[in-house]
Amino acid sequence: MGENDESEIIEHHDDEEMEKTRTPRYHAHSFLESVASSEKDGYSSTQSSHRLLAYSDALISIIATVMILPVAHTKFQDNEELKQSIQALLTTKVAVYLMTFLIVTVAWAAHIRLFQVIKRIDDTLALLNLACMMLITVLPYTFSLMATFPSNTLGILLFCACVMVIGLIQATIVLYGFSRPFFLNDQIQMSGNQAYYKRHILEVIMRVPIMCLFASIFSFIYIQLSYIILAIVIFLPYISQCLKWIWNKAIGQVEDRPDSVPFYTYHPSEPLSKERVEAFSDGVYAIVATLLILDICKDNVPDPSVVKEEFNDKLLAALQEYGPEYLAYFGSFVTIGLLWFVHHSLFLHVTKATRLMGLFNTFSLAFVGGLPLAYHLTHEFPRGSLNELEAVQISCVIIFFAGLFQLAIWVTALFTQHETLHPYVRYGGREHAFMLAKLSLYPCVALGSFAFTCILSRFSTSIFHMMEIGVPFAFILLRLLVRVVLAALRWLFCPVRNDLDSVPVEEEDSQLPINDIVT
Amino acid sequence: MGENDESEIIEHHDDEEMEKTRTPRYHAHSFLESVASSEKDGYSSTQSSHRLLAYSDALISIIATVMILPVAHTKFQDNEELKQSIQALLTTKVAVYLMTFLIVTVAWAAHIRLFQVIKRIDDTLALLNLACMMLITVLPYTFSLMATFPSNTLGILLFCACVMVIGLIQATIVLYGFSRPFFLNDQIQMSGNQAYYKRHILEVIMRVPIMCLFASIFSFIYIQLSYIILAIVIFLPYISQCLKWIWNKAIGQVEDRPDSVPFYTYHPSEPLSKERVEAFSDGVYAIVATLLILDICKDNVPDPSVVKEEFNDKLLAALQEYGPEYLAYFGSFVTIGLLWFVHHSLFLHVTKATRLMGLFNTFSLAFVGGLPLAYHLTHEFPRGSLNELEAVQISCVIIFFAGLFQLAIWVTALFTQHETLHPYVRYGGREHAFMLAKLSLYPCVALGSFAFTCILSRFSTSIFHMMEIGVPFAFILLRLLVRVVLAALRWLFCPVRNDLDSVPVEEEDSQLPINDIVT
Repeated sequence: MGENDESEIIEHHDDEEMEKTRTPRYHAHSFLESVASSEKDGYSSTQSSHRLLAYSDALISIIATVMILPVAHTKFQDNEELKQSIQALLTTKVAVYLMTFLIVTVAWAAHIRLFQVIKRIDDTLALLNLACMMLITVLPYTFSLMATFPSNTLGILLFCACVMVIGLIQATIVLYGFSRPFFLNDQIQMSGNQAYYKRHILEVIMRVPIMCLFASIFSFIYIQLSYIILAIVIFLPYISQCLKWIWNKAIGQVEDRPDSVPFYTYHPSEPLSKERVEAFSDGVYAIVATLLILDICKDNVPDPSVVKEEFNDKLLAALQEYGPEYLAYFGSFVTIGLLWFVHHSLFLHVTKATRLMGLFNTFSLAFVGGLPLAYHLTHEFPRGSLNELEAVQISCVIIFFAGLFQLAIWVTALFTQHETLHPYVRYGGREHAFMLAKLSLYPCVALGSFAFTCILSRFSTSIFHMMEIGVPFAFILLRLLVRVVLAALRWLFCPVRNDLDSVPVEEEDSQLPINDIVT
Repeated sequence: MGENDESEIIEHHDDEEMEKTRTPRYHAHSFLESVASSEKDGYSSTQSSHRLLAYSDALISIIATVMILPVAHTKFQDNEELKQSIQALLTTKVAVYLMTFLIVTVAWAAHIRLFQVIKRIDDTLALLNLACMMLITVLPYTFSLMATFPSNTLGILLFCACVMVIGLIQATIVLYGFSRPFFLNDQIQMSGNQAYYKRHILEVIMRVPIMCLFASIFSFIYIQLSYIILAIVIFLPYISQCLKWIWNKAIGQVEDRPDSVPFYTYHPSEPLSKERVEAFSDGVYAIVATLLILDICKDNVPDPSVVKEEFNDKLLAALQEYGPEYLAYFGSFVTIGLLWFVHHSLFLHVTKATRLMGLFNTFSLAFVGGLPLAYHLTHEFPRGSLNELEAVQISCVIIFFAGLFQLAIWVTALFTQHETLHPYVRYGGREHAFMLAKLSLYPCVALGSFAFTCILSRFSTSIFHMMEIGVPFAFILLRLLVRVVLAALRWLFCPVRNDLDSVPVEEEDSQLPINDIVT
């Protein structure tokens, strides 16, 4: 009887889970095993990890992005050249922002991999995960300390201490998970080789904390070496990933296909959970969009006494002073919203996110996080100044790279299109041209604006923002344009292309069920 | 052939959707209908609305919470009494925060209801939704204007204009959705009475914009009346909901059961989407937790020149000055994390969120949003001052109400426990006592601390924060404690209770399948 009750609650939670994340076919196993094992603990109940992961994604994405605020809020002197202040700014604040963003995404990737192994949680694991999150929130602060006091060991020691404690907590989670196998993912649960997996996963997890231990020891001897070790920790996963991919492409060797890894066991080329990549990206886009309104609310409400004295109590006249800010706000919001929209359209057609795609996604998001800086720059300078021109150029560069890395995600996916893309956007697919147009719209617009700023000696930020606000209409017309261009191309080059076009799609359709079975 | 292709992509997207939100049983219908209808548009593809809604939830939750920052960042004069500054603060900033929070949650509830009708989207709907989001972000600014210039009509006009445009966009979404019925939820799609539903939904949607139209007209004649109309717009849904519930309970009449509404058609007592309530709550908890680290990073990195002059280049000594801030940060983060944890535990066992439960959830979140204020107050005042005592008291009140409204969600759910709760936490269920203990822990701790502050004339904030950090251990021990207490109670009152206990659970188990079929 007691066993029935226990299965009842687990079944209930797993039902929820099924609706959200998991494929239903492994259920039978996990129920039986978890019922059998959790009975030992009496009251303890197993839960789906879905919401815990969503909350972690939200937290991590906000932490990653939040360090742009000190960058954006730097006050620029109006008389000095923008370039100089930018250079002073680049050395510390932008570096802190980018370092934070990259290290937090490294931590996030580790978190994904951990919870691809631990599939179900209980209260203890939830609390351990929260402790982990708390330490991750401290990382930006340690970077601020390092940037302000580069020759002091304290910043680096704090950072290393945080990373080591996070590593220990993650190791505890793994040990706890393996001691109650019904928490694990079903493949590991069913495999007879759990001890091997446990050792392998612990080795991977402890690699970074051990490097940090060395870094903290070397910080007393030769601090530059510590920084080099830290740089390796942060950048090595990215660089090695890029190099490996380029190497594979150059040699022509067949890459480890994502589906050749049968299940998630910390294999270096296992795909990232697509759902979590989306959740993390949503978090970044959302926080960036709302950082702007915060500034509007804080800075652009005039003081009642000023309105009385300077504007004869006419609020509208006082608010007209803020015209450029409003325009900049709407322009920036539209840009962020549409970059999200492009990202959303792309990931609708992505079936699997490889690690390289995740890497380009991170780069794209790092530039999206820079948009509040663009917003501040473009409304801060008086009209017609040279600074204004440079502010527009910087904005263009930020938007260009944000869009370009989105395009890079798709191009990367095209290289392994049979595993990673839906047939419609593959080469020759029906939406292929349209997706290309969607993804290349922002890089093109940014490049065009940049070219304009080079040709014209003066370029008003208002025109720039009006242009930003006009882009949605380009998106609405895009489908029409693509069809016209495609029709023209077909008419010019191959008038009978129409029949050919549907054949490859048909072929790929037949392959799809195989892919679905593999995933 | 073309039709096959179209069904391919829709099937793919619906597969994703199935994994995330929907029950699979309606698929066959929607496929056929959407294929048949979307073929007309050629390239246009239907998409799952899941990610759009997740992004909207993230945006709305951040906007709702972000107005706490001006409240928290108010500088308190050290020599004046806290009470006075609090009173000055209450009149404007807290009011703006609460108004923003409530109106944004009203907009969010409307958004939920809208997208319970519109189940699938295309690019046009996604762009319309983004436009809607952009206008929602402007609402906090209009409130700031209203609070700063209460006698000026401009704030109220801007607010009304925003609400009316949002209403128009939502009406456009509904009209667009009904013109392509494959976007609608399956029940409306299958019903023959679409014109009736369309009219009904449009009427509900346009109610608020029309009230705002009146408010904007009256603002020229008699501005107080406009404010009254606005107050009705904001509070009426909440008040009417409460009154109705109390009335039903008082009369003893059977309430409209959530499951007596067969499907989502803007019926006033239809349940809220549980998934979206969770997503919104996660967003609020995440942004509140990270607002704190932002302040730490901005304010608590000492200036290099100060360190050199005042602390002989000893960074550690300089950082020791910030000790109370760190303690306050960890204390606040732990509190927020655990309140999330309690919320998470509760909603694991909630099967359906009625509107009254959503209302209490909103109140709880509004107090959670006040925690950054508690953080600022508790580290801002010198030790041993009267202000310190009051800061702790205010923190206790905020935590108490945040916890109390969580408890209220559960108590409300217990009244209709057969529809809204999982058998385990129902009255007599196995986890009932444990859930009660979990939910009442924070209110009890807060009440206890408050009592201490009244008894003792001085109460250090450090002790308060140490206490906050200690609460997780209480959670770990809670299960043990509850078992001990229950065992003691059973041993005292009914030694044979053990057998009785499992019988009601068993009974409810048999009822569960019926509930599942109804949902």
